[in-house]
Amino acid sequence: MAETYGEKALVLCSGGVDSTTLLAMAVKRFGAQNVFALSISYGQRHGREIEAAQAVAAFYGVQQRFLDLAAIFADSNCSLLAHSTEAVPESSYAQQQAEGGDGPVSTYVPFRNGLFLSSAASMALSLGCSVVLYGAHHDDWAGDAYPDCSQAFVDAMGAAISEGTGGQLRLEAPFVQLTKADIVREGLALGVPYQLTWSCYEGGETPCGKCATCIDRAAAFAANNALDPLLG
Amino acid sequence: MAETYGEKALVLCSGGVDSTTLLAMAVKRFGAQNVFALSISYGQRHGREIEAAQAVAAFYGVQQRFLDLAAIFADSNCSLLAHSTEAVPESSYAQQQAEGGDGPVSTYVPFRNGLFLSSAASMALSLGCSVVLYGAHHDDWAGDAYPDCSQAFVDAMGAAISEGTGGQLRLEAPFVQLTKADIVREGLALGVPYQLTWSCYEGGETPCGKCATCIDRAAAFAANNALDPLLG
Repeated sequence: MAETYGEKALVLCSGGVDSTTLLAMAVKRFGAQNVFALSISYGQRHGREIEAAQAVAAFYGVQQRFLDLAAIFADSNCSLLAHSTEAVPESSYAQQQAEGGDGPVSTYVPFRNGLFLSSAASMALSLGCSVVLYGAHHDDWAGDAYPDCSQAFVDAMGAAISEGTGGQLRLEAPFVQLTKADIVREGLALGVPYQLTWSCYEGGETPCGKCATCIDRAAAFAANNALDPLLG
Repeated sequence: MAETYGEKALVLCSGGVDSTTLLAMAVKRFGAQNVFALSISYGQRHGREIEAAQAVAAFYGVQQRFLDLAAIFADSNCSLLAHSTEAVPESSYAQQQAEGGDGPVSTYVPFRNGLFLSSAASMALSLGCSVVLYGAHHDDWAGDAYPDCSQAFVDAMGAAISEGTGGQLRLEAPFVQLTKADIVREGLALGVPYQLTWSCYEGGETPCGKCATCIDRAAAFAANNALDPLLG
């Protein structure tokens, strides 16, 4: 990303590997004083992600905002939601799709990322930002597992944000064609404090090691011959 | 609109003329039992709109959902917000633009309609709907007063909703090229209970008659040689 002066940016921060790496890049590019981190509760099973996002924002010294949008998903039975009767699958996305065919996985929260990006756009414009940064990456949308992470979705949502704000705001998703391994490579070079992040869908003391996001995270560190500090 | 069987629809209902007319059309097309009305608080100056939306949904016998998204606009100073230090202008949109030039008016709430549509998409998918209906019309976006009502915005947002839900949901905005007068003509033919609706930006006992939306509403009824029952 090119150096940018005089702009403010809002980064959607989940507390995970991808958005934390994106936050590190944003701080380098815009300066910590020009970056806002937005973290959103949506009724997930545990608060570990939000705690991680808080720790990461504090590490980088950026301003933080929180939202609770759980009410929007009151009628959903997605397995990531605390009120769901579905269990979180103990297998990778690839395995889930091999069993169930292509298409959204059971951990797809209905249009969640569209909602998060719209919320981010409304807040960003209110805060005088000109950019919203979104950490979706290629592994998320392989086989259409998470359609709200795809290049086509990002392009359409970017157009909606630009048109709907009269050109005052743009969406950037620099990881959308990268793998999680690519992102970890970038983050390791930037010294991202991955020990502060949280990825696991369960809210235990340590990552479960069995859910799709644990499997993906482990593979991304392994591909870089690196140790995940959360497991160290 | 064509007859549609076996589909469920969610209509964004503000309690005003446009979305109430859209709700009437949806009930005729899908059947009241297949229609959900979603009404959203965003921190506006008064609760008259939400009360009107409630009365309208009760009239048509559709299921209703409410959301409070005011927290998202905590940092905005848009004149429609209860915490704003700006006054609501006492002039038409055309007058405001003649004075201030083209572009968003002071009553533009940052990306509000993008946020509303994303919230509607998340809820609609959770409820098993395949359509989200949106009542934006041409007068709203003339001169780019409300960029989040334009044809280009609707097209982009429609693509984002379709892509982001893996094709499970679509957006329809049948009024986007119509004027408010066209909408009132349609609604009068359908017997829409306009006496239950509310448009004025102020929350008084009766409409103020001075704000842009009062001016537009009066003109739309006058163009149809009809009396606004709210003023009768």
